Amino acid sequence: MQTVKKEYVEKRLNDLRKRMSENGIDFLIIWDPDNQYYLSGFRAISYSRPIILLVYPDKTQYIIPALEEDHARENAKVDDFFVYHEKYSNSYLDTTFHQPLERIIDKLAKDKVLGLELNTVPASLYKELQINGFNIKDISHELIEMRAIKDEEEIYWLDQAGFLSDIALDASFANLKVGMSELEFDSNGDRKLLEIASKKYPDNIVGYENWTCSGIKRSTMPHLYSSTRKFEKNDVVIHSRQVWINGYRAENERTFLIGKPHEEQKKCLQLAIEAQRIGMEAVKPGVKAKDVDIASFNAIKNAGYADFVQHRIGHGLGLTEHEEPYLRFDNEIVLKEGMVYTIEPGIYIPSVGGFRHSDTVIVTKDGCRSITKYPRELIDLLFDI
Amino acid sequence: MQTVKKEYVEKRLNDLRKRMSENGIDFLIIWDPDNQYYLSGFRAISYSRPIILLVYPDKTQYIIPALEEDHARENAKVDDFFVYHEKYSNSYLDTTFHQPLERIIDKLAKDKVLGLELNTVPASLYKELQINGFNIKDISHELIEMRAIKDEEEIYWLDQAGFLSDIALDASFANLKVGMSELEFDSNGDRKLLEIASKKYPDNIVGYENWTCSGIKRSTMPHLYSSTRKFEKNDVVIHSRQVWINGYRAENERTFLIGKPHEEQKKCLQLAIEAQRIGMEAVKPGVKAKDVDIASFNAIKNAGYADFVQHRIGHGLGLTEHEEPYLRFDNEIVLKEGMVYTIEPGIYIPSVGGFRHSDTVIVTKDGCRSITKYPRELIDLLFDI
Repeated sequence: MQTVKKEYVEKRLNDLRKRMSENGIDFLIIWDPDNQYYLSGFRAISYSRPIILLVYPDKTQYIIPALEEDHARENAKVDDFFVYHEKYSNSYLDTTFHQPLERIIDKLAKDKVLGLELNTVPASLYKELQINGFNIKDISHELIEMRAIKDEEEIYWLDQAGFLSDIALDASFANLKVGMSELEFDSNGDRKLLEIASKKYPDNIVGYENWTCSGIKRSTMPHLYSSTRKFEKNDVVIHSRQVWINGYRAENERTFLIGKPHEEQKKCLQLAIEAQRIGMEAVKPGVKAKDVDIASFNAIKNAGYADFVQHRIGHGLGLTEHEEPYLRFDNEIVLKEGMVYTIEPGIYIPSVGGFRHSDTVIVTKDGCRSITKYPRELIDLLFDI
Repeated sequence: MQTVKKEYVEKRLNDLRKRMSENGIDFLIIWDPDNQYYLSGFRAISYSRPIILLVYPDKTQYIIPALEEDHARENAKVDDFFVYHEKYSNSYLDTTFHQPLERIIDKLAKDKVLGLELNTVPASLYKELQINGFNIKDISHELIEMRAIKDEEEIYWLDQAGFLSDIALDASFANLKVGMSELEFDSNGDRKLLEIASKKYPDNIVGYENWTCSGIKRSTMPHLYSSTRKFEKNDVVIHSRQVWINGYRAENERTFLIGKPHEEQKKCLQLAIEAQRIGMEAVKPGVKAKDVDIASFNAIKNAGYADFVQHRIGHGLGLTEHEEPYLRFDNEIVLKEGMVYTIEPGIYIPSVGGFRHSDTVIVTKDGCRSITKYPRELIDLLFDI
């Protein structure tokens, strides 16, 4: 079941400890569930029961609620566990995560330097830790940097996620009908990908999410949840499909045209395809993030559509829906082998429609390769039904 | 499409402003997406592009990324918008949320009192706001209190979510087979609920999530994502189904037994059903949250199974997966009409299995009513296939 091999956890902890030492940090509190999974192989559905991972130079500890104890002991590569309880007959034990955390902290010298992910730790916990007088340093960036370069195990699962996302797109398109809702269109893809995943990857965790925006108005809003709106004759549709397996995600988006599209709709989809191709061709080690975005944007600008761009060309991907570093015009970061990005330039024109493909690419030694392979040419995406 | 009627937004803002005035708070920064939706009718898929709602005694403002502008102008009941950009040709405009936020803050007197949801605002933003010298007060609790009592519109959608969750359970059970995976079992329910939702609620947002834990080992871990593990003859299975429509959620969980279960498995499922019935009967206005948990726990204890309880009897529900106030042995809060809770006592016994039903109930004038109605008796949940 969903976990990370011990050798990768050890490698990541070694890297993290080197960074702690370089930054003069004595211990870490890791709050973000994706960072916890990355560093221990354990991921919980936490919601109202916080889970805390503590990392020291010589050991790791989890603070977990009782209902996660068996799960954590099964999956987490960690030295100690502290369990808090919520049942009546255990009221004499720890009943919140604050109690073990405070006991742990009380034993530490007050001049210690504490590393925190300030981008995700809630202000309430930060305030509580501030009171203890520790010198607090932000370690968000260190974890972003580590997670940006994917290792072999991560790339293996990313490839499987890409494969499953293509299967889903194929099944959604094979069952496309005017009069079906966005959610029904998604659902045909879900069903098929789960059938294949259940055969090919027994005892693994698979998940998915879709955002399908159909019709001129909805397709010009890039980020909407799928709805019960029904496909109409001559709709333009942006279908966004995300699939993850053992935590690793592929994003696979296609714009398609139903019935008899207007010439401008075909022209704009062709332009979005071309801008994406230019973006993909720009990705290689040594190139700056900004240059990928600008190359693609300029293609849209030269065609006269600059006014209709709303967002950057892409974002990092892995365990989280959107990961840094972003492919934005103002990001000077240099791309490296093993980074993973979505390439998804979009054009959104009132009374014409929205046009955006997205593929997920892995930066290779001398370029990039796409883990999502569903056909992306105009001719593949016209459905005269 | 997904929004909140203007009259409800106004009523909620009036209530919130009364609370601001009582607590001496001059303005609020609302970060939590569910709170934003509750107070404005606008919900975005935000991820790496923060969205901020500002509430003053006399106006409201949104800071939004450009790709949400049309969407926000369509749905948000708010006075002003500040838009930040991420396209190359708009680099002379605001390019992060910090820029409009700083301009807004700079114009405010430094002795103002700022209200923040400290339970969700990230430490990085809190730190940034601290530097400005405002007196910061936590308003998490005020919003929890307001959202705990559901109004008519909220109850309408909760009822629809409950209805859809029952349809999904029905379809999942109708297609149950040994050899299908947990995820395939879920998927049959998804498909049917989306078909019905697409007919009955055109142009609405519907979502769902399932956690199915099959077999003795997985069912004794209460909180696991559904996997590709295949159902086996004589499995015990906990199926957790969540459905939301226009943001409002129903939780509907059933434990079921495939094939020829052991006597102890039947006995434990019967006990979980009985403990749930006792919990539901305890829910009414004027009762304390703790008394519901303790009544149900005592039934399990009296049967000799206290050691196998891992968690409280339930949690609040509405826009968020788990909402306060929680039905925990140490919660003195008094239940009121219009509150919504899951009632889900669980027993988890190594080498026997896990047993838990969950239903979502609304507190009524003199008791509660369940919005999830799928049959919950032992006889309904034995599948001798």
